Amino acid sequence: MNDIRFNKRKSIEQIEESNELCPKFDQNGLMPCITIEASSGTILMFSFLNENALKLTIEKKQAHYFSRSRKRIWHKGEVSGLYQIVKNIYIDDDQDCIIYEVELNKPRKGGEKASCHVGYKSCFYRKIEYKNNKISLKFIEKKKVFDPDLVYAGIENPTKI
Amino acid sequence: MNDIRFNKRKSIEQIEESNELCPKFDQNGLMPCITIEASSGTILMFSFLNENALKLTIEKKQAHYFSRSRKRIWHKGEVSGLYQIVKNIYIDDDQDCIIYEVELNKPRKGGEKASCHVGYKSCFYRKIEYKNNKISLKFIEKKKVFDPDLVYAGIENPTKI
Repeated sequence: MNDIRFNKRKSIEQIEESNELCPKFDQNGLMPCITIEASSGTILMFSFLNENALKLTIEKKQAHYFSRSRKRIWHKGEVSGLYQIVKNIYIDDDQDCIIYEVELNKPRKGGEKASCHVGYKSCFYRKIEYKNNKISLKFIEKKKVFDPDLVYAGIENPTKI
Repeated sequence: MNDIRFNKRKSIEQIEESNELCPKFDQNGLMPCITIEASSGTILMFSFLNENALKLTIEKKQAHYFSRSRKRIWHKGEVSGLYQIVKNIYIDDDQDCIIYEVELNKPRKGGEKASCHVGYKSCFYRKIEYKNNKISLKFIEKKKVFDPDLVYAGIENPTKI
């Protein structure tokens, strides 16, 4: 394992105004992470990190997350080939949320560059519409860019009802 | 209160592939929310919603969140004047994360359009640098755009050590 060390949190000034990285993980050891595409700024996905996932990502420059369903480090792309090359990492004011700025890859089994397991480029492929007191979702990505049944053959869908 | 109703979650196909809004709130009744600026795509902040905050935002088109520290609905801007006018709302594949796309306002007591309580436009004003095995933070916003001591006079800093 790498020898990256984070700083201990000591003061609000240190956390908000200094150049010391002192991330705060929640009571489950997790921190939210937003992933954006470097070339377009598009938000691709939202997930969680633990301390080890963040350290691995900083060191290896490939996106690592923590899978809450599988309860283990998740190296994005390990199944699909949809690796994310990390160009920049940002942190927020109170150092409890991260942004990964990444370059996408194509799935190993064919298709275009993407991030979402459903087959779209981004997980945020729908917007909420509210018209005449009626709520619905509108697709803003019109077409899947890879076939999820091929790319994730035999893998359980991570979406839970 | 408004009469917006969300759909019951019934199947993975409904959740991922349909135009039915069926959001999933966690065991605390919360859902993560990413806020971006409509004109630039810049990520401004990360926060949480409860069901009522989401309904209020859809109806009133001003950003409402749930403050976990104050344990109540947080109408962004109620103290500072930094209201966020919501232009679009997006939801992710499994419908457990939201994006608010907003237009910013200036603080009531002077300064430029902003979102972050520290005085920067975005909460993500620093990036992580890793060079020669040393970790540090680099400021990507060079200058505060309002004076937080003026705008939040007498208000406790929400950042916790």
